[in-house]
Amino acid sequence: MREVYLDHAATTPPYPEVLKALQESYATIYGNASSLHATGQKARRALEKAREDIAKLIDAEPEEVYITSGGTESDNIALFGTEALYPGQPMITSLIEHEAVLESAKALESKGHPVRFLPVDTNGVVDLNALKAYLEEKPFLVSVMAANNEIGTVQPVKEIAKLAHERGALVHTDAVQAVGKIPINVRELGVDMLSASAHKFYGPKGIGFFYLRKGVKVLPIVQGGGHERGLRSGTENVPGAIAMALALKISTRLFTRTHYRYERWTAQILSKCGEIGGFRLNGHPQQRVPGLLSLSFKRINGEALMELLDMNGVAVSTASACQSHSAKRGYSHVIQSLGIDEEYANGTIRVSLGVENVQEEVDFFCEILKKCVLQLRGYRNGQ
Amino acid sequence: MREVYLDHAATTPPYPEVLKALQESYATIYGNASSLHATGQKARRALEKAREDIAKLIDAEPEEVYITSGGTESDNIALFGTEALYPGQPMITSLIEHEAVLESAKALESKGHPVRFLPVDTNGVVDLNALKAYLEEKPFLVSVMAANNEIGTVQPVKEIAKLAHERGALVHTDAVQAVGKIPINVRELGVDMLSASAHKFYGPKGIGFFYLRKGVKVLPIVQGGGHERGLRSGTENVPGAIAMALALKISTRLFTRTHYRYERWTAQILSKCGEIGGFRLNGHPQQRVPGLLSLSFKRINGEALMELLDMNGVAVSTASACQSHSAKRGYSHVIQSLGIDEEYANGTIRVSLGVENVQEEVDFFCEILKKCVLQLRGYRNGQ
Repeated sequence: MREVYLDHAATTPPYPEVLKALQESYATIYGNASSLHATGQKARRALEKAREDIAKLIDAEPEEVYITSGGTESDNIALFGTEALYPGQPMITSLIEHEAVLESAKALESKGHPVRFLPVDTNGVVDLNALKAYLEEKPFLVSVMAANNEIGTVQPVKEIAKLAHERGALVHTDAVQAVGKIPINVRELGVDMLSASAHKFYGPKGIGFFYLRKGVKVLPIVQGGGHERGLRSGTENVPGAIAMALALKISTRLFTRTHYRYERWTAQILSKCGEIGGFRLNGHPQQRVPGLLSLSFKRINGEALMELLDMNGVAVSTASACQSHSAKRGYSHVIQSLGIDEEYANGTIRVSLGVENVQEEVDFFCEILKKCVLQLRGYRNGQ
Repeated sequence: MREVYLDHAATTPPYPEVLKALQESYATIYGNASSLHATGQKARRALEKAREDIAKLIDAEPEEVYITSGGTESDNIALFGTEALYPGQPMITSLIEHEAVLESAKALESKGHPVRFLPVDTNGVVDLNALKAYLEEKPFLVSVMAANNEIGTVQPVKEIAKLAHERGALVHTDAVQAVGKIPINVRELGVDMLSASAHKFYGPKGIGFFYLRKGVKVLPIVQGGGHERGLRSGTENVPGAIAMALALKISTRLFTRTHYRYERWTAQILSKCGEIGGFRLNGHPQQRVPGLLSLSFKRINGEALMELLDMNGVAVSTASACQSHSAKRGYSHVIQSLGIDEEYANGTIRVSLGVENVQEEVDFFCEILKKCVLQLRGYRNGQ
């Protein structure tokens, strides 16, 4: 039996239409987009059409959208592509970023850039007063994620960008958990750079994009044939770009319907958690990505709950999938930054709904969740 | 009408079986390979199976194979992942490398590593005496491609590796034009690092691999969640890896059949060139990738010939697709390095056969080629 998949923040199964587009484009648009013959130029046109579609969906110009291999690479371009132009200048990021930004920031630190990490409040919202203070140090870059991957809190990126620009800093946002899930408009946000990953919005894996505002200078982080106007060398993944553009189009079209459904299911899950008792919902109560729930249960271990749910046919996660490489136990750096009671923090799971989920799966999850939490609490009590 | 596609060195249309595998794996193995639940672990097993398959096909251990976004990234890992460990030490490469190595080498030069560029003979084979001389300078790395992308010459990588290792240098080979086209055995070659790209052997775009011999230390060039044992962060492209492994398996199985066919067609094309007259075949007469022909015609312009062939329904290239980003005209750095007469060099095209080509297409190409060369020569003569 297929597992009830409630880990869409980790990755999503592509839309059937996206798989069809991927298949068709590989069969008919197989040329190298950098080849000058008709077969190559057909691929070039398809690539530029995909770029235009993506640009339109985030209110960018086509030439501001660069195709990359995914979110991690895009984040690395933002940080390492700018740092050499501002030697020794500090940068600002937050304590709850994804590892792609966090580890890059640490690497910048070792290259001589002082890094300031913004704290967050108990809802996971970055501290704008701390931002204002750090901006006095003339940082070259502020990188704050659009939505957090573990708790779903949407950050005040627009305000952050405004404050940062007043002080002359560049602004990057890791929008991997936001693009395709909530409306993202780069003009409205006012950011200079934005990262996105297709497999988070029902597109293929191994492809993403990087938005770079016209006029902002970024150096490439890999050297080669000068593809993507010199920013990202390597033969263009045209079928992937076509599929990504379609996935973003469909996700955007489905916003209202999925948000409505996720809200209903969220209420149902929270109501069940109320029955179970001794729980808290992490993240901001309103400013959040629909369908992403970080739940902390008192007196249990989150890892044990995740495993027990898995044995009962439900896939959720504790923190992010990317953190599973670090052997650390306990709770994640994100949960830690919220400053919530340890008796809750230890018992944290992330539930993330997806477009292919159906009511029966949510019903099933609610029953299994109750059973598992009570079972674990029972063990704890020595039963 | 579909163009007769004779530019397989630029990119290849995936095998139908590969497309089917890609489709099926996206539909059934959509989990994140770093997730700990059953859906994630199913993806993990599929990824490790693909890695084992690839390893077996090149005689490596599974843990020596790292999945990357393609050849360019793999080449960049080889050069930038090692250089920081050997500050200021020189490196050796050749004059006829792909831009992914050449541009990376130039970047290393600006970081304080003297770079020595090996010259090649008129067949495009690197000069081993020059190598021996440069090895006296205690380089940390020798990077020479396995097969050239423009002229098909196969380099004596085994001898290069032996000489380099005697002097304590690491050895990398860009095998993007060799893997899946000629037998590649990393133990036999004795290299420490090797780069490959799936779309060159009828696999998907946006994926490749990097072979790293056990015990050799390389630092990651992108920072993040620590995927691929810390070397290549970013959510694993599991369907891409599955499809790449299958493509390599099929290509390897087809070696004998395709090589036989390519030899026959090569003889046919060269015979037609003999009829046309005033031509030369570039690259080594024997040590070459089957099906990749660099042809130079006297008294014509290669670009004009490529365009005229294209107008007549045949896709070939002048140099590599990756070079089309540079606005340079005339001939490529590879052709230039061969030291052949300029009246030939100017009239160079690259013809690369593929598994889906049929006899009728080769016949058609031969006729069109003659017509186009004679037509261009006619124009030149003022007719």
